[in-house]
Amino acid sequence: MTTALIVLAHGSTDSRWQAPFETLEQRLKERMSSPVRLAYMELCDPLLETVVEELHAEGFNSIDILPLFFAAGRHLREDVPAQLEALRHASPELSLTLLDPVGQHPSFADVVVSIVAENQRDSSCTE
Amino acid sequence: MTTALIVLAHGSTDSRWQAPFETLEQRLKERMSSPVRLAYMELCDPLLETVVEELHAEGFNSIDILPLFFAAGRHLREDVPAQLEALRHASPELSLTLLDPVGQHPSFADVVVSIVAENQRDSSCTE
Repeated sequence: MTTALIVLAHGSTDSRWQAPFETLEQRLKERMSSPVRLAYMELCDPLLETVVEELHAEGFNSIDILPLFFAAGRHLREDVPAQLEALRHASPELSLTLLDPVGQHPSFADVVVSIVAENQRDSSCTE
Repeated sequence: MTTALIVLAHGSTDSRWQAPFETLEQRLKERMSSPVRLAYMELCDPLLETVVEELHAEGFNSIDILPLFFAAGRHLREDVPAQLEALRHASPELSLTLLDPVGQHPSFADVVVSIVAENQRDSSCTE
C-alpha cells in the first residue's frame, strides 16, 4: 500500500485561522494521487493522533508528516517527535516519518518570489 | 523610487528558529531586483518598526509587507495592523501595504505538492 501524507499545522482556537489550511488540504487532495490529510498538532480538531489512528485503521502502515511550519522550533524538535514516539509505542508496526518543515525547503523561496512578482504586476496595473 | 518589501515573520526567542528566515531573506535578495528585508513582528530583532524606519531613512516611502504566515489569525487581523497604524501616525508620508499571508496564496499549494513529489522520488530511490 502507498504511503499516506499528513500535512501538519500548529492549530488554533480561532476558526478563521483554520480555514486556509482546509483550503490547502482541498487543493492537495485534487492534485495528489496518494492519500493526503490535514491534522493539527494541538488546540483544534482533527488532532495528529486522531488522523494517524484513522489512516492506520484504513490500512496505512507508512505515513509521512509534512509540517506546515516555516522553521523547526521547539514544537518540531521536541513536541511533535514525542507525539510520534507515543504513536509508535502504541502501534509498533507504524512507520512514521517527520519531514523537514515546508519553510526550510529551497523551493519555498521560489513561491515567495512569485507572490511578490504577482503583487508588483497587480500594483502596476492599478496605478 | 521603487517600493521596498518586508517579509514579516512572527519572531521567536529561539535562535535556531530564526535561521531559516535568514536563509530565505538571502535567497530573496539574490533573486529580486527591488529591495527586500526580513523583519519580525515581536520577540527578536530586527523588529518591524526598526526595519520600516531604516527603509524610510533610506528614502523609501512605499513599503509592502508580506507576512510569512500560513493564515491570518489575530496577529495579522489586529496586532500587525495596529503596528502599521502607529508607524503611519508617526510618518504620515509612509505608504505601508499589508499583503495577504503567503499561506493563503494559491501557488502555495503548488510548492507543497512539489515538496511532496520530491520526497516521494527520494524515497523510491533509497528503497
